[in-house]
Amino acid sequence: MILFQSSWKLLLRQQRKLERLSVKDFYQTKHVEHKGQVDLVTETDKACEALIFNHLKQQYPSHKLIGEETTAACGATELTDEPTWIVDPLDGTTNFVHGFPFVCISIGLTIGKVPTVGVVYNPIMDELFTGVHGKGAFLNGKPIKVSSQSELVKSLLATEAGTKRDKSTVRSLRMSGSCALNLCGIACGRIDLFYETGYGGPWDVAGGTVIVKEAGGLVYDPSGKDFDITSQRVAASNPLLKDAFVEVLQQTE
Amino acid sequence: MILFQSSWKLLLRQQRKLERLSVKDFYQTKHVEHKGQVDLVTETDKACEALIFNHLKQQYPSHKLIGEETTAACGATELTDEPTWIVDPLDGTTNFVHGFPFVCISIGLTIGKVPTVGVVYNPIMDELFTGVHGKGAFLNGKPIKVSSQSELVKSLLATEAGTKRDKSTVRSLRMSGSCALNLCGIACGRIDLFYETGYGGPWDVAGGTVIVKEAGGLVYDPSGKDFDITSQRVAASNPLLKDAFVEVLQQTE
Repeated sequence: MILFQSSWKLLLRQQRKLERLSVKDFYQTKHVEHKGQVDLVTETDKACEALIFNHLKQQYPSHKLIGEETTAACGATELTDEPTWIVDPLDGTTNFVHGFPFVCISIGLTIGKVPTVGVVYNPIMDELFTGVHGKGAFLNGKPIKVSSQSELVKSLLATEAGTKRDKSTVRSLRMSGSCALNLCGIACGRIDLFYETGYGGPWDVAGGTVIVKEAGGLVYDPSGKDFDITSQRVAASNPLLKDAFVEVLQQTE
Repeated sequence: MILFQSSWKLLLRQQRKLERLSVKDFYQTKHVEHKGQVDLVTETDKACEALIFNHLKQQYPSHKLIGEETTAACGATELTDEPTWIVDPLDGTTNFVHGFPFVCISIGLTIGKVPTVGVVYNPIMDELFTGVHGKGAFLNGKPIKVSSQSELVKSLLATEAGTKRDKSTVRSLRMSGSCALNLCGIACGRIDLFYETGYGGPWDVAGGTVIVKEAGGLVYDPSGKDFDITSQRVAASNPLLKDAFVEVLQQTE
């Protein structure tokens, strides 16, 4: 228990250091190393892992450490029953590189292979999620609980596509649930491509399409024809990607 | 031009009023009216549209108005060549109801059916996107431009599923690009269901799984069997949804 309590406090302080590191870097131009075509590693990723590992080694010299970057560089470390800190210095690396604001630092402690302490921090939204086995879960210190939804048809499902890093057409896929914010994502370069058909009406696109165009982007029908604000069909990208994007959309329609 | 400049300033002030309205409401329990099974309308939605419409009517009595809520209640208003304000008081209504932080107020002005002014404001992240035809696009007052990406395979694609509101299995789908934050989304009830296979390694789930469990949720293999932290397969939900979710996942695997 003392281990949990002390590691807990240390983790919180550690996360605050990382907050400054990550937020400072978030909107800067990133120097990205390419490992293959869709695997991105940023300097922040490596700096965060080194910072967390150095700290944990000093505090708990006998504990094992597993980290994404170290595993990538040195091969996998087998998970044993011993206390093991498992660190993802930057979950959502593709988001980080694109400036899409869903990134976090994730730290877990397993004992007997059982996850026992969890800390996840989103520095962009300043949200700190914490949990200790038997002690409850918290968001910025306030207790949280799962939804009480009991019907699939009323449920919001999260999943991912593109994580297998095979020969996919695009790097990754995002579904944010807001047509207007997707258009703004195109406008500020957080997203490269966007299309949607069957959305509610012109109110979903009337504001965003101006913003895309004024940011140097194109708004068009997914067929490649002119955009019609009353058609409930929209695609947007920079001018460089339009032809290739329309070709792919025509194949999938 | 005077029209643009004055409407611009008014819109900015208007958005600040709406900010207070929306942020105050965001974490409150919402009184949701169900229109059909997957169509949600909140009090905030209606309050925002009324507030924007009243303001625009006073400032521009001769202009036309089109709004999502008014259209839903009174039928579609035909878009003409006259100056027309097209308002979505709350884009991302499902997100708003679930507390998923991708919501915005979207206002556009069309003249001759051409979108000419656009304002999109995300009050949760305090991001104001603006654009005026021929005047550029801005995020919180700073110029923005689209990405310079020229290859599909390096592109981040945004789209949506579930907007057709047909007999889908779940209400809607989100892809955020962060496994750890998806688990935290389950923990705080922003998301009801999450599964992912083929993610990077145990560092993606070591922190989040503790937080889900401590928030009263379940973490399991998508097959319904016990979760194995080394398997790169994870599903999570509240206890009520597990059986139905596993059944659907088994049908799709």
